Amino acid sequence: MRIGVVAPSTPIAREAAEQVTAIAAAEFGEVELVFHPQCFVRHNHFAGPDDVRAEAFLDVANDPAFDALWFARGGYGSCRIAEQVLGRLGRAARDKTYLGYSDAGYMLAGLYAAGFGKVAHGPMPADVRRKGGQDAARRGLAWLTTSEVSALDATLRRADKAAAFNITVLSQLLGTPLQPDLSDHVLLLEDVAEYTYRTDRAMFHITSNPGVRKVAGIRLGRCTEVPQNDPDFGETEEEVVRHWCERSGIPFLGRCDIGHDADNKVVPFGTI
Amino acid sequence: MRIGVVAPSTPIAREAAEQVTAIAAAEFGEVELVFHPQCFVRHNHFAGPDDVRAEAFLDVANDPAFDALWFARGGYGSCRIAEQVLGRLGRAARDKTYLGYSDAGYMLAGLYAAGFGKVAHGPMPADVRRKGGQDAARRGLAWLTTSEVSALDATLRRADKAAAFNITVLSQLLGTPLQPDLSDHVLLLEDVAEYTYRTDRAMFHITSNPGVRKVAGIRLGRCTEVPQNDPDFGETEEEVVRHWCERSGIPFLGRCDIGHDADNKVVPFGTI
Repeated sequence: MRIGVVAPSTPIAREAAEQVTAIAAAEFGEVELVFHPQCFVRHNHFAGPDDVRAEAFLDVANDPAFDALWFARGGYGSCRIAEQVLGRLGRAARDKTYLGYSDAGYMLAGLYAAGFGKVAHGPMPADVRRKGGQDAARRGLAWLTTSEVSALDATLRRADKAAAFNITVLSQLLGTPLQPDLSDHVLLLEDVAEYTYRTDRAMFHITSNPGVRKVAGIRLGRCTEVPQNDPDFGETEEEVVRHWCERSGIPFLGRCDIGHDADNKVVPFGTI
Repeated sequence: MRIGVVAPSTPIAREAAEQVTAIAAAEFGEVELVFHPQCFVRHNHFAGPDDVRAEAFLDVANDPAFDALWFARGGYGSCRIAEQVLGRLGRAARDKTYLGYSDAGYMLAGLYAAGFGKVAHGPMPADVRRKGGQDAARRGLAWLTTSEVSALDATLRRADKAAAFNITVLSQLLGTPLQPDLSDHVLLLEDVAEYTYRTDRAMFHITSNPGVRKVAGIRLGRCTEVPQNDPDFGETEEEVVRHWCERSGIPFLGRCDIGHDADNKVVPFGTI
């Protein structure tokens, strides 16, 4: 089992990579975890210039020696390379498992829209540095290696299709070629560090999209590190999501266990 | 000439309304400027609950005694009432002139998408409180009363269609029923108080949209109050916009004179 790690957004700290490598060696003996050198490159905001990040992604995705591509970290930047990467993926890329969340959602969306079958929203190596983050890294490794059921969000049901996104990222890919067909999917959403008025605005955007209106329902994960609105927004994030579900006729199905934290569970796109 | 002012987003200060009323009385004798009482209501983040803001908009828009509807101020909130307002506009609304910018862009977009012919991006009453803001208020009044040519962005040419938006607002209405057909339009853009990585992300979103790719070209106004990115983003807002224009095959046509400031010029949607 060979897992390649790349960073289409921002670089990962070497200490984080070493910690995850140690966990893999100690507890997942069958795994060979390979951090592409690009993961540690820094170029302004990004883990290398666009071309460097794109080539690293293609190096791993198109290499049949890798079973999985694991996104090192979120941040910002994968939308800048999505189009050029997606146009150059070969057969080996199609058989691979992809795991990440947050800014990686642009790539997950584009891969899923292109018919890739093994795409999942879940923990990344950089999560190891969160409080309790070793469990997040273990969860990611457990799902990548054995499709461990306990790694999955507990609300997922075998009969349902699902997909999961950061609210801001999903909003910012609507109406582009990256937008996947989410008809009849349960859509799980989370966000981090956004003012509630921005979450409200993004939920207007998401629930007003004719494609999104075809989902089976929306579940809300956690919205964390929310800055204090001035004046107070007067609605919690759950009230905001319920409001827009009601306005748009999309069933609100309750909460789920995803978010920018160590408890973030895995949500495979499509059926489990 | 009767101008009705409403606030579909956030409330305007009474002092600002009084200052603009004084300018209108002293310099635009033919104008009767009517601030709807809703402009001063405060409900959490908004100038009144959604229903109150929607009804105020309809009071003015559907009243044939008003020649124009002037948006009092931006902020956030017009997307929350756009759908219910647009569905209830009658014939008197269609003959009216509409002027505003920033968050008002949701309404301008929806009105223009619905075929309303006299929609423009430009100064609002609340701008009077900016440094030099009396000139912004005068410019708005001059355009509303006499279609004063000097109020217009100087890059506009009589033969071209145009439209103008706040970058974040345009991004957040793509793929919804509010998105107007911008084919062959010169698209003028500006933004305020956004990190450059967010402007980059929004420009990815805007220039990846198949409808936007049909514009004649993009002009960039001002991006002001940009928070310092950590690390430095390494590109100016003009470099960001040029980058995405080049990537998407949209001609970059240069700068223009719009933005969240007192110099903000008027851009009528469609032809001038």
